[in-house]
This record gives sequence, C-alpha cells and structure tokens, in this order.
Amino acid sequence: MKFEVTILGSNSAIPAHGRHPTAQILNFNDELFLIDCGEGTQMRMGELKVKRNKINNIFISHIHGDHVFGLIGLINSMNLSNRKKPLHVFGPVEVHQTIDFQLQLTKNELSFPLVFHETKMEVEQIVETSNLEVITIPLDHRVACTGFLFREKFRESNIRPEAIAQYELSVDQIKAVKNGSDIQTKSGETIPNKDLIKKKKKNRAYAFCTDTAYLESIIPLIQDVDLLYHEATFTESELSRAKDTFHCTGKQAATIAKKANVHKLLLGHFSARYGNLSPLLEEAQEIFPNTELAHEQVTFEVGS
Amino acid sequence: MKFEVTILGSNSAIPAHGRHPTAQILNFNDELFLIDCGEGTQMRMGELKVKRNKINNIFISHIHGDHVFGLIGLINSMNLSNRKKPLHVFGPVEVHQTIDFQLQLTKNELSFPLVFHETKMEVEQIVETSNLEVITIPLDHRVACTGFLFREKFRESNIRPEAIAQYELSVDQIKAVKNGSDIQTKSGETIPNKDLIKKKKKNRAYAFCTDTAYLESIIPLIQDVDLLYHEATFTESELSRAKDTFHCTGKQAATIAKKANVHKLLLGHFSARYGNLSPLLEEAQEIFPNTELAHEQVTFEVGS
Repeated sequence: MKFEVTILGSNSAIPAHGRHPTAQILNFNDELFLIDCGEGTQMRMGELKVKRNKINNIFISHIHGDHVFGLIGLINSMNLSNRKKPLHVFGPVEVHQTIDFQLQLTKNELSFPLVFHETKMEVEQIVETSNLEVITIPLDHRVACTGFLFREKFRESNIRPEAIAQYELSVDQIKAVKNGSDIQTKSGETIPNKDLIKKKKKNRAYAFCTDTAYLESIIPLIQDVDLLYHEATFTESELSRAKDTFHCTGKQAATIAKKANVHKLLLGHFSARYGNLSPLLEEAQEIFPNTELAHEQVTFEVGS
Repeated sequence: MKFEVTILGSNSAIPAHGRHPTAQILNFNDELFLIDCGEGTQMRMGELKVKRNKINNIFISHIHGDHVFGLIGLINSMNLSNRKKPLHVFGPVEVHQTIDFQLQLTKNELSFPLVFHETKMEVEQIVETSNLEVITIPLDHRVACTGFLFREKFRESNIRPEAIAQYELSVDQIKAVKNGSDIQTKSGETIPNKDLIKKKKKNRAYAFCTDTAYLESIIPLIQDVDLLYHEATFTESELSRAKDTFHCTGKQAATIAKKANVHKLLLGHFSARYGNLSPLLEEAQEIFPNTELAHEQVTFEVGS
C-alpha cells in the first residue's frame, strides 16, 4: 500500500532560489492529501501531473501566507472545472474566514460542497478511515499552528504462499487472512492468523511539523515515526533569530528527531537567505545522520 | 526612453499548458508598472529577475482570481523584505477589501504605506507624471472591470548633431532642446525648436484590455495606440460561449484592433481548452495581420 510524500514547496516566507512556499502531496493508498497550500501550489501540481480533483482533504497548518495563499486559487480552479465531490479543509478558523470572505466578494457559488473543519491547539484525531488516522500536533508559533500526524491504523499482511497450498485457501480466505483474520480449514480446524502470514509489518507514520519554535512537547506524539518533516528555517548561527521568530534551526530539528527516535528526518521551510543549504543539512546530520533536505519535486517514501 | 511590456502570464481562469494567470510588467523609462497580478506573479518576476521593490504602482483590472490572487503574496513579500516606499494599488473597491481583510486577519502591520486608489467604471486619468498618463478604460465583464491606457505625454526629441556645432550649444541647451525648448544663440538670435531637432516623434501608447465582451465603445479611447493587448479567450467557433461569459474571440479582438487603427495587436487570456493557439492567431490575422500571441516571458516594445 503506497505511503509517500512529494514536496511541492520547501521555502519559508519569501520565494527564492527557485524554491516555493510550503505544500506537499501525501499519497496514501492512492488517496491524495494536500498539506499546506502556499502560493502557486496548483501550478506545482500541474508540473507534476497531480490531478486536483483527486484531492479530497486539505490540511493547513496556520494562516501565514506562505502556507495558505494558494488555497483560494486551487478552490477556484476546482470550481471552474465543475467539481462535484465535497472538499474537506482542515485548519485554524482564520483559514475558513479568509476563504469565505474571498468567495463572497466574487459572489462565487461553488459547484461542490466545501466543508471546513476548524483545528484547535490540542491533540485531536481529525480524520479516521479504516486504515488511516490524522491527528493534530499543537506547535509553538506566532499564531495558532498545528502539525499533522498521518498514522496507518492497519496494514495488510503478506500471506505465506505455502500456507495457501497447505490449507487450500480460497480467494476470500486469502483476503481475510491479509486483513488479520484467523481461518477455519475444511476439516474444521482453526488456524490462527499469525501462523498464516509473514512477519507482521509495523504500521507506518508520517509527521509534518511546521512552523514552530523548538518544542519538546511534540516528542511523545511523533515517537518512532518513519518520516518526520520538521522545519529548519535557519542554521544554528541564527539561533537567536530563530527564537525571536518562533522557528527552528537545523540542529534543533535534528535534536527533536533524535529524541523522538524517528527513522528519517526531512528538513524544510528554508529561509530565503540560504542559496546553498549544505550547512543546514550538515549541522543536522551531526546530531541525526539519517537526515535529508526536502528537495522540491522529490517523492519520499514513508517507511518500507 | 524605454517603453515595453513583458508578459508574465497569458492564460485565463485555470492555469494550463505551462501558461499562468494574467500579469504583465510595463517598463516605462525604467519605471516598472505591474498590470494585474494572478497567482504566482512574484515567482514569475523572480524567474525574470524583475525586482519587486522597483514596482511602485500596481493596476488591477477586476476582482476575478486569475487577475488578483497573487497580489497578497507580493505585498507580503514586499513587507517581509522591509520595504519603506509607498505602494500604490489601483483597482475596484473589492481589491482593496480583500487585501485589507487578509492583512487584518494576520494582524500584519506593513513596513510601508499601501495606498489604494479605487477605479470606477468611467474614463478617468488615474496617474499623471511629467511624461506619462494612465487612463481607465471601462470594459464589459461580469463584474466591474477596467482596462488601462498608458500614454506618453511628452517624448524627448533627438537633436540634429549639426545644430549643436552650428549654434555652439552648451550641455544645458542641448537638454533644453531635447525637452522641447527654443534656444537663444550667443548673438541673441532665437532658434525655434523645430529647426534644431530631427523629425518629432509621435507619443507612444499602450492599451491593456481584459476581461471584456466585444465592446466598440473602447475604440475612441484606444485609437491609434502602438500596442493593444486585447483578450481573446476563445476562437470564433466558441462565439456563443464567449458572449455568455463576457469574453471575446480572436476575431473580435482583431476587429477592435482594426477599427481602432492600432499598430500592433497582442492576443492573451487564453482558455485552458487550447493547447495549440495557432487557430486563435490565424483567425485574428485574417482581419488584422499585425497580430501576435502574448507569449509568456517575452518582451514587446511599445512603438518605435
């Protein structure tokens, strides 16, 4: 089952060096989730052939422009292409307000239901499907801001081929085993699921944490995730500026990753002052070696 | 004196085929004017190395998103880069409202004065400098919408080199002649300006007309302009759709250009349905041969 994230924008407030404001596409089992929507996101999606109407859920961390200025344009294009399916938008109340205001200004009757879900500064499960949950992660920024944890709830197991032959399993039985069921053989014997499958795989998780000051309270929430995207706006040499603006350094992001024992760290939300991002990467890798830069147009797998 | 326009975006409502929503940079004597500001305009400017802080005046035709969604992002970036100079924005009242609302939402105190000038559905001189005037052109769209006429008021003349030698003109006198003055020679004789300059050049003009239904009332306003940018959203085969949506066909744009006796016509605001724009160009050139497509990242000279 696919679980991967594609970076559309990795820069902080001012677009620079060919880098764009924050936006990511999370693909979970071919369902697309958009995370943040900086200006130009719909064009980035076009470049990568991401179909806008495959997106049913958009998650916005906070109201700062580099995370939300592309949302009205995307909604407008969905409307102009006569979308019918509901679109769910999760974010602080201000996101709802700004979209509503702009739609009213142009007296725009949308062709589809736009459903707002206001996030709060608390840990809350905001989406639950049969195999995925999304949970808010309160962050520490100048305005209300949450990260998002995407956690697999159930992961299909691989069945052992020899078990299929041994117990003469039907197609329906194979499906049931993959979904965690025990089975009953023709002779009436019950075979427990664990004897039919290969080693059970760990459920995977992706955490998106931007924008925020250094914040240890997020560690229990993101403990052991496979992939952590954490903002690293500045290098450690700009620590005081990072503190003043409620942002993090590369070193701080790596410290969080290490303390939370995540598998891999992705750095993003880079300040426009950095053309060359190597110093940022290097200072993080000193603390947490399995770190990469969130390069745009690159897809990163969540777990394995 | 430079007078040229660079196309940043030429598409209509939905970005497609690598084309972007409407925006243009007019360079008049190295002063930059931004005309419309669709989503992503600041990134297009970055690609062309257009410095945002060289822009002091922005003209917005109407409130539809493909003409204005990039404005808040550009203002935000100007603010983050600590601009001090005033920024003048000309457009319908809704443009003012949407920017104000978004700034208030983020409690954003701008580092510079933002001065709104509300355009009305009438012909009005909205800018006047010593050598340029800008005049609104009321259009016929689904919402209040104006075009803009940029007209040179005074054009420096070229002086005849032999006149400099003959009358032993000083540097100050040469400057005065170029600016239209007669001069007095050392012997007290008055030489009229016309005897000192090469042939007087015609004042140049650029007209920007989008979005609009076919509208003959604009013809007297744009009569004889050197360059007319006119929307041509559809081909003539979609005439009824053009009428329904208050847009024009290539043929209609060319008819306006011909009746107004302009020098050159630029077609723009292309519907996303057209990957290949040749049919649009061809139908216009049948009526008005000196027509070009407003290709993005191309600079067109206004007059000669």
